[in-house]
Amino acid sequence: MRVDRVLASFFAAAKRRATALGPRYVDLWTVLERNSVGGKRFRPRMVVAAYEALGGRDEEACALVGAAFELLHTALIVHDDVIDRDFSRRGIPNVSGSYRDTATTAGIASPAAEHRGMSAALIAGDLALTGASRLLLDVSCTHEVRSGLLELLDEAIFASAGGELLDVELALAPEVPTVQEVLDMERAKTAVYSFEAPLMAGAMLAGADPALIDALEEFGREVGIAYQIVDDLLGVFGTESATGKTTLGDLREGKRTVLIAAAATTDDWFAIQPFIGKADLTPDEADHVRAKLEVCGARAQAERLVDEHTERALAVLDRDVVPADLRVVLRPVVDTVLERDR
Amino acid sequence: MRVDRVLASFFAAAKRRATALGPRYVDLWTVLERNSVGGKRFRPRMVVAAYEALGGRDEEACALVGAAFELLHTALIVHDDVIDRDFSRRGIPNVSGSYRDTATTAGIASPAAEHRGMSAALIAGDLALTGASRLLLDVSCTHEVRSGLLELLDEAIFASAGGELLDVELALAPEVPTVQEVLDMERAKTAVYSFEAPLMAGAMLAGADPALIDALEEFGREVGIAYQIVDDLLGVFGTESATGKTTLGDLREGKRTVLIAAAATTDDWFAIQPFIGKADLTPDEADHVRAKLEVCGARAQAERLVDEHTERALAVLDRDVVPADLRVVLRPVVDTVLERDR
Repeated sequence: MRVDRVLASFFAAAKRRATALGPRYVDLWTVLERNSVGGKRFRPRMVVAAYEALGGRDEEACALVGAAFELLHTALIVHDDVIDRDFSRRGIPNVSGSYRDTATTAGIASPAAEHRGMSAALIAGDLALTGASRLLLDVSCTHEVRSGLLELLDEAIFASAGGELLDVELALAPEVPTVQEVLDMERAKTAVYSFEAPLMAGAMLAGADPALIDALEEFGREVGIAYQIVDDLLGVFGTESATGKTTLGDLREGKRTVLIAAAATTDDWFAIQPFIGKADLTPDEADHVRAKLEVCGARAQAERLVDEHTERALAVLDRDVVPADLRVVLRPVVDTVLERDR
Repeated sequence: MRVDRVLASFFAAAKRRATALGPRYVDLWTVLERNSVGGKRFRPRMVVAAYEALGGRDEEACALVGAAFELLHTALIVHDDVIDRDFSRRGIPNVSGSYRDTATTAGIASPAAEHRGMSAALIAGDLALTGASRLLLDVSCTHEVRSGLLELLDEAIFASAGGELLDVELALAPEVPTVQEVLDMERAKTAVYSFEAPLMAGAMLAGADPALIDALEEFGREVGIAYQIVDDLLGVFGTESATGKTTLGDLREGKRTVLIAAAATTDDWFAIQPFIGKADLTPDEADHVRAKLEVCGARAQAERLVDEHTERALAVLDRDVVPADLRVVLRPVVDTVLERDR
């Protein structure tokens, strides 16, 4: 994918610049690069899908915009991992984990080693965040389009930061949040930068009308929310082989998901609550919680919400303002979201 | 100062946008704003000094550029405090401190409350970092100038991040770094974004020649390094009433300063080392360390380095490429740096 080449050359340039400050700084860039490869390049795909379906031909410009959103994604997950005190992602050490592990190997005690890991990750996330807007500076386009793209990126960061804050705050609040609060948080934290902004950016770069860009924002929002609810469902009912992560994690950390918010309003909550956030939850206890989440209707409610939001997304695609070529490209996006679930 | 009005309107707009995500997000912006006011507005002053001395007349554009560097400063200190696990700055709670304290008041136990504080500060720093480039988008100037300004900002972040990483790494390394390593770290961490980039940005906005912009980079570097060494001296030999911070702090945390790096190469180091990084260092022990730092020549070496770098800075101002008006404005900057010391 062309985006990979753009990112490779971005990191090569950064490592060249970093040599002026010595090998330690080059190492940080190497670790950051390792944490930005191997993803599904989901956000660049959204940019490319909108851009090409709308007749865009400048593949390099499009790849730069896609790479910017990929770097934003890297920045957000690197900082999210700091906030969640996670030292690995998809089974391999993340930035914090790499820096913690080399410190441990060098004989530095655990709290100091972990703190070194989190410090390096904080700095690396700042660099990825800055790198995202830097990439947009290299896009060959009019001044107006570039300003529009930079504002979209800014909006995406603004929303993600707000969603991340709500995530932190909802987890600490004594009451379980409402389903709507969880949906608002998830939309802000992930849907905006993963779906809405990349689709809008691709369309903007292709010179689309504001009305179409607005429609893509709405489509992105609905798909993005559906995607997040599916993610919540998979976190409890998914199969570990398909998702690559344990289905005990969300329950053990007491994550405020749509499922939990829905269950908290039912009479079965008293039988579920003691296990939510139980750090040593056993597989048997998890089975009990899963059964209760079905019985109380929380699972059904979440699945109904997935259907509602995907239907709304499809309805946006049926509007006259959406060209047929774009419709054809975006319908499979909705399917992809659904297929993760069923 | 016009910069204050620009920042006030930036934060007002951000708070308006944040209401869409509810009062919690507005609170974060309020706390962030509180952490960005009350500073000396040092970086904006550098921008304005260069811009006006070179005949720039668009005060609003200049204030926007100044405000961008002030926000960058806010972002860097907010993240630096996370890395240093500091919960206050200048005696009042910083972002981490405010969020920790309200959590503690709400009955949340200490580790969770501290973690909430650091999470909020990480997010707030990301927002300030992004805000800096957003402000540059509103500057009324040519496309070339704006790209140049955005690249300067990017360079400043690149350098500061590298300096911050080196600071973390030098503190953890078993050996005391060399004086040159400390100077390189301090230049990258602070001098670039505090002196070099703001001066260059002001000149760039005023349409200065590349040769003059290069000279300002060199001037900024020399003044900035002198400033940092003075800071190291004040951290140990300053008076608490003048600096507003304890002169035990640097010694207690074992900060890798020019003084310490210089002392480590002398025969007196064996009598100093046991007290460096001693968390419960007493005032008497600190007096002993101060006396040793004088005897071994470390203080004299640091003061000599201040003189050398200020002389080099003044020599840059004497070059033909620097207009007389600018020379007149920048000489007092050098004096200000020195006056902190003597």
